[in-house]
Amino acid sequence: MKTIYVENFGGPEVLAIKDLDLPKIKDDEILIKTMAIGVNPVDTYIRSGWYSGSKIPYVPGFDASGIIIEKGPKINDFNVGNRVYCFKSVSGTYAEKIVVKQGQIYKLPDNLSFEEGAAIGTPYGAAYRALFHKGHAKNGQKVLIHGGSGNVGLAAIKLAKSLNMIVVATAGSEEGKGLCKEAGANLVVGHNIEDFKEEILKFINDGFDIIIEMSAHNNLKTDLEFMAMYSAIVIVGSKGEVPINPRNLMSKDARIMGFVLFNAKNDELLDIHRNLFELFISKRMKPPIVGKTFNLRDAKEAHALVERGSYGKVILKPDN
Amino acid sequence: MKTIYVENFGGPEVLAIKDLDLPKIKDDEILIKTMAIGVNPVDTYIRSGWYSGSKIPYVPGFDASGIIIEKGPKINDFNVGNRVYCFKSVSGTYAEKIVVKQGQIYKLPDNLSFEEGAAIGTPYGAAYRALFHKGHAKNGQKVLIHGGSGNVGLAAIKLAKSLNMIVVATAGSEEGKGLCKEAGANLVVGHNIEDFKEEILKFINDGFDIIIEMSAHNNLKTDLEFMAMYSAIVIVGSKGEVPINPRNLMSKDARIMGFVLFNAKNDELLDIHRNLFELFISKRMKPPIVGKTFNLRDAKEAHALVERGSYGKVILKPDN
Repeated sequence: MKTIYVENFGGPEVLAIKDLDLPKIKDDEILIKTMAIGVNPVDTYIRSGWYSGSKIPYVPGFDASGIIIEKGPKINDFNVGNRVYCFKSVSGTYAEKIVVKQGQIYKLPDNLSFEEGAAIGTPYGAAYRALFHKGHAKNGQKVLIHGGSGNVGLAAIKLAKSLNMIVVATAGSEEGKGLCKEAGANLVVGHNIEDFKEEILKFINDGFDIIIEMSAHNNLKTDLEFMAMYSAIVIVGSKGEVPINPRNLMSKDARIMGFVLFNAKNDELLDIHRNLFELFISKRMKPPIVGKTFNLRDAKEAHALVERGSYGKVILKPDN
Repeated sequence: MKTIYVENFGGPEVLAIKDLDLPKIKDDEILIKTMAIGVNPVDTYIRSGWYSGSKIPYVPGFDASGIIIEKGPKINDFNVGNRVYCFKSVSGTYAEKIVVKQGQIYKLPDNLSFEEGAAIGTPYGAAYRALFHKGHAKNGQKVLIHGGSGNVGLAAIKLAKSLNMIVVATAGSEEGKGLCKEAGANLVVGHNIEDFKEEILKFINDGFDIIIEMSAHNNLKTDLEFMAMYSAIVIVGSKGEVPINPRNLMSKDARIMGFVLFNAKNDELLDIHRNLFELFISKRMKPPIVGKTFNLRDAKEAHALVERGSYGKVILKPDN
C-alpha cells in the first residue's frame, strides 16, 4: 500500500511516497481504508525535526477518516463497514490503510463527509479541550479567540457559538476575517494589537471570561489587560518567551493554562468526541470548513501550503 | 476610644494615635472589644500609598481578635461575650473597639489565644485559598512553598502538613529556615535559585504538584521547570514583570493562578474559616507562631519591623 514516509527530518521535500506491506492487525486493533487525511501544522513541526521526542523513519499524521475493513477479535464497539475518523494511530495516517487501537477512533456522524471527518481530530479536539476542559466555558460567557482563522480557531469559534457565547475573533487577513465571520464570530478584528485594542474595548468593556491564545509569545502580556474577574487564558500555541505582570493575574483572580492534546487521557478524549458527535449530528454546530485537497502523493505541496498559511482544512486523499 | 489614624500616606511615622468617638452599630453590625490586632505586610503597602484604590484619612488594619460587646438586632449567629477574630471590618482594626458585619467575623477556637487569633485572618485565609481553592491540594501531593518563612508561608506549610503533603520550603535566613522546619516542612532550602535547584531536584525529581509563590517576579520562570504534569503555580505575591516560556505550561498541562484574598466571595471565606476552625480545634494543625507584640500606640515601630522583615506574627495590643 502507498504511504508517505519520512527518512530524514527537513523541508516538505522529505515527504516521499513509498510502498509498504499492508500491516497486520493485532487482536485489539482495527484496520481502516483511508478516505481522507487531515494535515495539521504539528505534522510540519515534527517533519522539520522541531520536536525533540520524534524518531525517524516514520509515517506522518494524526488525523484521518475512512471505513473499517478489518477488526481484531477483542474489538466490540466497532464493526467492519463503519464510517470512522481517528485521532492518532498505530501506523501513521498518511497512508492508504491505517492501523488504530480502540480509543483512537470515533464514529463519523452520518451527515459529515469523509473530508469533514478528517478535519475533526486534532483541531476540534484541541478547541474543545481549550474551551471546555481547560476554560470551563459556560453559556453566555465572553470569549476572545486570538488567532481565529486557523483550523483550531475556527473550531473554537463554532464550538463557542453552539453554546451561545459572545465571540470576538482576530485574524491577519481579509480572507481569514471572512472565515471567522462565516464560523459565527460576533466581532472580527485585525491581528495587530494596536489596531484592535480600542475596537475590542468598545465592544466588550468589562473583559473576557476566556481567551483562547494561538500565539502566546506575542499576545500574553496584552491578554492580561483584557481579562474579566475569575477568567482564564488558555494557551494553544506559543513559540518563545514573553514577559507578563503576575499582579494582573492576582487582581483578577485569573489563571493562565497551557495544554497539548497529546497529554489528554483516554476518558477525556472520549468525552470530547462524544460531545462533538452530538453537536454535529444535531446540527447545533456546522461542519468543518474544508480548504484545498491534494492527492496523498502530493503531501509535499500540502505541507508547503500549510506552512505558507492556508484557509480551511488541507486534506490529502489516497487513490483507493 | 484610641485608634491609629492615617491622614496622609507615607512612612511608618504617619501612623498617629487618635481619640475617636465610640462608633454606633447598625442593625446588622457587631461591636468588638479588641484584644489583639494582626499587622500584615499589606497594611504597610496601603499606608505607603502604593495601592491606587486607597483613600485617606482611615483607620488601618484587617485582622484582629476580641470579645463581642454589642450586637445589632439582625445578628443571630453571634452573641455578646463570644471570643471572635475578624478578617476585614467596617471601621478598621487598629482600634480599641471595632465595628464588623457578619461575614467579617469567625468564632475563635477555645484552644487559641487572642494573639494567635489575630494571626489567622489574612495569612491563614491567603494560605488556605492558595492551597485549596486555587491549587486544589490533595493528600500526599508535593508542594513547594517558595518564601516559606513569612506568615502566609508558615500557614501554608502547616496547612499542607495537616493533609500529609510533602512540603519543600525556601527561606532567606537561618532564622527563617528554622521557622519553616518548626512549621513542619520536610525540606528547607536557601532562597537563592542557584543554591537550591540541585538540592530540590535530589529530593523531588519528578516535579511539584503545587508551587505557592510569594515572589513571582523573581521565581516564576524557574518555577515552570519544577512542575509535575497537571500542576499549578499559585501566585500570592509579585512586584514586577517576569519573562515566562508558555511552552513549559503547555507540555505539562499546567496552570498559573493569581488571586488576592479581597476578591474572595463571602461563601468562600466562610468555607475557609470553617475548615480552619476544625483544623485548629482538633489540633490537626498547630497554632500560629506569634512574634513580637507592641502596644497599639507603637504601631509605627510595628510597621517598621514588618518592613525590615520580621519572624512570626507581629501583634498590636490595645490598653483596654
